[in-house]
Amino acid sequence: MARRTLMHVGPSVGNLDVQISSVVPDVGFASPEFVGWMANALEGARYVMGVSRNYSSFVLPYSGTGAMESVTSLLRKGERVLVASNGVFGDRWEGILSRYPVRYKFLRSEPGKAVSVQEIDRELQNGYDVFITTHVETSTGVRMPIEEVSKVVRDRVSLIVVDGVASVGGEAVSAEDWKVDVFFTASQKAVGAQPGTSLMVCSGRAMERLGGESMAPFYLDLRNWKPIMDGMETGIGGYFATPPVGAVASLSRAMDLIRNEGMKERVRRHERVASIIREGVEEMGLRVLAEEGLRSNTVTAVLLDREGAGEIVKRSMELGIEFATGPHPALRDRYFRIGHMGWVQEKDAFAALSVLRRVVS
Amino acid sequence: MARRTLMHVGPSVGNLDVQISSVVPDVGFASPEFVGWMANALEGARYVMGVSRNYSSFVLPYSGTGAMESVTSLLRKGERVLVASNGVFGDRWEGILSRYPVRYKFLRSEPGKAVSVQEIDRELQNGYDVFITTHVETSTGVRMPIEEVSKVVRDRVSLIVVDGVASVGGEAVSAEDWKVDVFFTASQKAVGAQPGTSLMVCSGRAMERLGGESMAPFYLDLRNWKPIMDGMETGIGGYFATPPVGAVASLSRAMDLIRNEGMKERVRRHERVASIIREGVEEMGLRVLAEEGLRSNTVTAVLLDREGAGEIVKRSMELGIEFATGPHPALRDRYFRIGHMGWVQEKDAFAALSVLRRVVS
Amino acid sequence: MARRTLMHVGPSVGNLDVQISSVVPDVGFASPEFVGWMANALEGARYVMGVSRNYSSFVLPYSGTGAMESVTSLLRKGERVLVASNGVFGDRWEGILSRYPVRYKFLRSEPGKAVSVQEIDRELQNGYDVFITTHVETSTGVRMPIEEVSKVVRDRVSLIVVDGVASVGGEAVSAEDWKVDVFFTASQKAVGAQPGTSLMVCSGRAMERLGGESMAPFYLDLRNWKPIMDGMETGIGGYFATPPVGAVASLSRAMDLIRNEGMKERVRRHERVASIIREGVEEMGLRVLAEEGLRSNTVTAVLLDREGAGEIVKRSMELGIEFATGPHPALRDRYFRIGHMGWVQEKDAFAALSVLRRVVS
Amino acid sequence: MARRTLMHVGPSVGNLDVQISSVVPDVGFASPEFVGWMANALEGARYVMGVSRNYSSFVLPYSGTGAMESVTSLLRKGERVLVASNGVFGDRWEGILSRYPVRYKFLRSEPGKAVSVQEIDRELQNGYDVFITTHVETSTGVRMPIEEVSKVVRDRVSLIVVDGVASVGGEAVSAEDWKVDVFFTASQKAVGAQPGTSLMVCSGRAMERLGGESMAPFYLDLRNWKPIMDGMETGIGGYFATPPVGAVASLSRAMDLIRNEGMKERVRRHERVASIIREGVEEMGLRVLAEEGLRSNTVTAVLLDREGAGEIVKRSMELGIEFATGPHPALRDRYFRIGHMGWVQEKDAFAALSVLRRVVS
Repeated sequence: MARRTLMHVGPSVGNLDVQISSVVPDVGFASPEFVGWMANALEGARYVMGVSRNYSSFVLPYSGTGAMESVTSLLRKGERVLVASNGVFGDRWEGILSRYPVRYKFLRSEPGKAVSVQEIDRELQNGYDVFITTHVETSTGVRMPIEEVSKVVRDRVSLIVVDGVASVGGEAVSAEDWKVDVFFTASQKAVGAQPGTSLMVCSGRAMERLGGESMAPFYLDLRNWKPIMDGMETGIGGYFATPPVGAVASLSRAMDLIRNEGMKERVRRHERVASIIREGVEEMGLRVLAEEGLRSNTVTAVLLDREGAGEIVKRSMELGIEFATGPHPALRDRYFRIGHMGWVQEKDAFAALSVLRRVVS
Repeated sequence: MARRTLMHVGPSVGNLDVQISSVVPDVGFASPEFVGWMANALEGARYVMGVSRNYSSFVLPYSGTGAMESVTSLLRKGERVLVASNGVFGDRWEGILSRYPVRYKFLRSEPGKAVSVQEIDRELQNGYDVFITTHVETSTGVRMPIEEVSKVVRDRVSLIVVDGVASVGGEAVSAEDWKVDVFFTASQKAVGAQPGTSLMVCSGRAMERLGGESMAPFYLDLRNWKPIMDGMETGIGGYFATPPVGAVASLSRAMDLIRNEGMKERVRRHERVASIIREGVEEMGLRVLAEEGLRSNTVTAVLLDREGAGEIVKRSMELGIEFATGPHPALRDRYFRIGHMGWVQEKDAFAALSVLRRVVS
Repeated sequence: MARRTLMHVGPSVGNLDVQISSVVPDVGFASPEFVGWMANALEGARYVMGVSRNYSSFVLPYSGTGAMESVTSLLRKGERVLVASNGVFGDRWEGILSRYPVRYKFLRSEPGKAVSVQEIDRELQNGYDVFITTHVETSTGVRMPIEEVSKVVRDRVSLIVVDGVASVGGEAVSAEDWKVDVFFTASQKAVGAQPGTSLMVCSGRAMERLGGESMAPFYLDLRNWKPIMDGMETGIGGYFATPPVGAVASLSRAMDLIRNEGMKERVRRHERVASIIREGVEEMGLRVLAEEGLRSNTVTAVLLDREGAGEIVKRSMELGIEFATGPHPALRDRYFRIGHMGWVQEKDAFAALSVLRRVVS
Repeated sequence: MARRTLMHVGPSVGNLDVQISSVVPDVGFASPEFVGWMANALEGARYVMGVSRNYSSFVLPYSGTGAMESVTSLLRKGERVLVASNGVFGDRWEGILSRYPVRYKFLRSEPGKAVSVQEIDRELQNGYDVFITTHVETSTGVRMPIEEVSKVVRDRVSLIVVDGVASVGGEAVSAEDWKVDVFFTASQKAVGAQPGTSLMVCSGRAMERLGGESMAPFYLDLRNWKPIMDGMETGIGGYFATPPVGAVASLSRAMDLIRNEGMKERVRRHERVASIIREGVEEMGLRVLAEEGLRSNTVTAVLLDREGAGEIVKRSMELGIEFATGPHPALRDRYFRIGHMGWVQEKDAFAALSVLRRVVS
């Protein structure tokens, strides 16, 4: 079996301690042990997304895409939604929103670029209730300047939602200061836990929306999850649907390690690694897809001047580094992605570059 | 940390080999390793539910409740749905169906009893497109005679759906012979793997329904999962949403162990254990909630003649056995449940009874 | 693979948390992590054997038999050694002592009995330098009253050595109060960690003997291990021979759990379980080999009135309980042993008895 | 906790699959499961040391140093022993042999060099019964040309013993073809399993020596272990002293992976990695201690022109690579060692060099 370095976009570089923490004795989902892990994970979700107890916290037993669709719990029939999408995962909102009775409009950017604050500002003049965007677009490695965007948006809509799936745990996030209402991520990305859960924090004004009629799916409706999470935070087990017990234990452990490291130092580590990766890639004569100033700490998409990205990924895997192919339909097989998130260290960056160098030369 | 025997309704009695199998080296969700585990799990899902390759198989990254809602992928607008519900989990279909543009009617039984074949037969005269029921009702331990029910139903509707969450892996299931179109379960129940996935098999006539317009949620829509599963079965990785890599590895291992044991022997083992439990419970002067003839191999609900079930569960936990409280609203605190599924052995039944005896005396 | 309850004499009933703790990230044997585990294990060894920092503590990378032979580090050429042996493991000292230039004499008991304090008292009149005995004789389950013995012995020899392999962690041990000079055990017995290490504590007067010329084997000579242990206790890594890194981590974790439980409560738990086992065995009409008053908390040897113990062990294993056959040459196949040590709980005793009942009836 | 790459001399670069395999359900040391792992490990020991069933195989529950001392089982009183030592671990034989009634002489080399075949040839004229040397000297990374040495020695002594602790699993070894009588190694080195066991193979003429009177320690005497190993190889459990159950399971798994890789390819992998390391080290202006032609596949000792090796090791550890300090008394703090054995890959070499470059510049 493999002994690879997983420079993938999630699950990403693992941590044995976190992985092992998912192997737990036989305990039920309402046991004191489980309640303890869950409470710790919920508080950890607040920590990594930079919010206080003013925000409700959720650990949900489904992936980031499920978390996206859970946002429908907060929408009201007929609302106007503006989405600023920088790629495949921004566009995924269309797959979701098109199934619900809301009106939506997309602003879209070229791959490697981001929708600008100016465009958003201009479009908002048409009147919107909800604004949605993506912090780091996994398909291109582009990072949206959320703080700046939020300043322009926040007083003109009643709900700002940010998909932080590829950012939280590797980028500085201060959802409360930035006045973002809903921020969410998935456990297997820069938070560095097992896949199988997603994490979401919601402001008070977001939670008020749960009062209205629901258009969300039963399983994904935050109304059903809210009392469970409230119980867990006060030490009381509850049941809506069976949680992935081990994955939550692992998430709880990851949160302990993240607190030990400190988010500031964690972000700096991701920055250092990202910068080594980008320099190395450019030294090899390859291009970083994301524009200067928009490059994330967590994903570097590498653009070739020809097809053959799949081959590079395949050969690198044989040499012990697993990169990710690129899903952007406009660039298929002309780019691949290096994930550098979770527990990645500088030495991993050097190992990855050494393999890449041999494969592209 | 606990060293308990988990006589719960899921996760239930664990198996170290299966648990440990969830700790895997860092591999991506499109890696050959993952594809192999998934393909094995998909084939295993067919084996435990008794279907051939005529049925499509799904391993889905959400719990049994999510799988229930995925059934909406197969419904058409305006269809008439008949649900035979024997308790809390049968009733859960109302939470789901009420959100979709279908017409539905429920037949319901007293706790401990089952809707009869005659009632179903009679109601079907009113004309239905879809019939839904639950094999083993987790809230009461009642087992519905699916083969018999299906004989009456199958030619009068175009879709039969059976929730096998609490039965598959511990009860004999022959979905294809029984002509059930959709059978599903969850990984953490009698199949005995980690929580975090659900398993579903669908007949050809069920799959044809994917051709129509979808009313399902994006995340839960089988249309989105079908190409991924098809790819995995032919050795090709794919992505719709990130699967819980380790949980799938654990599920794959559980399937290996189930094949080694053989489903026939596995069902017999569950029968033997269930029978020890029931006899022991009755010897103590307690009552088994489920009626004679409707008692499942996997869950025994125990009825008290007074309140205090919560206390019994609590004190048993202190003595090393974790039972489940009972969620049925009509009986709250007057009953609890003994789960005996997954990797349970006769010795566990004796240990559980010895603890229960001390607690109730 | 097995899902058995290991009612064996060591490894015995396990604890997932302790087992899992042996899986550690790649760290060297001189790393700060390893030094921390070792220091904790060394202090834990003192705790479970009831000694203060007046005693030196050793965690040695070999089994209990190796620890026995390490005692030769403390012997001087020509010394007279008296051994009170109650069975196979007491007799094992002969295999060891016969290889070294010392004079020794054995007092022996019938199986199930113990050499009496009176016999020891009488024999000591012949003049001895060293006295050796076994706290719990694993082959028969007999417990020697060490405190009482020591009172008679301690002022008449210059070294008292007690083999606590089958007792420490399940019996009350106060080596310092009892004025025993050397007490040792093995990690996989009642301490409940992985096999692979042994633990020894030595009084000041025992340690002075290291000053003399050595007759011990190089690998087993405490002179070689002493500086390593001293280093570890002050936070400094060292090397004499490579320690089993994971096993030491597991031992460290076991010590944490033992401290949490508290030795008093731990001994009481072993007593309760032992008493359930003995009563159950006698109710079935079988005989406990050890005499009343000499029955240990950790091992119950069960005597049949015929051959067939091997068959009982074999059939019990098929039903999920692993007992141990009996090695005593005088009783071969006429007895077997039930180990109840480590993390054993009352429910395990009931499970074991339920299986035994079916096998012997 | 650490997420380091362990470029140490053993334990070395790990493999999660192998590590995890040490976590086994509760099974006794005489269970069929354990016997199976042991039998597989014993056969694997033959495979990695290149011998047929003509050789007896041992898996022993103590470290490589213990295995060295077990060689005393094969010595006869008064025999003349010649030892060719290239460093600290060759010299360790003196610690051992000086305790036994044999006459011995050492040939020694400068650090980085090896005793030459010519010197051995010449010294043998003085008449010896036993010849002992070390394949790869862990303290200097020097590899002795065993095949060549054996040709000169084998007809002139009756026992050739080679310490393969730092070579087996990473160097080509054909003990039978080379007519070496005793070859041994330790589990945690290039074989890549958990520490805690050693492996030894002995020729027929070596085994005949067990017939004579023993001078070995009881615990380390191959006479006591032989019947246990013989039993295991025919499927029968036995007991002399408790084996480290999990470590043997892990060793068995490592042997499976080694067979999958194939020893030829495994040696080539070690060669490639060693060569990357050596080139990288020299490019940095550092010196490889071992002379050209004597450089091993498994350990590279790096010589500085000043003190400060400890500091380099310390700072590298902070950057995620754990090297080993150097124990050679002649060079203390003027050199350190890079272990590249077990599951090491080229990417690890590059990662190690990238860290080393930053630390020494």
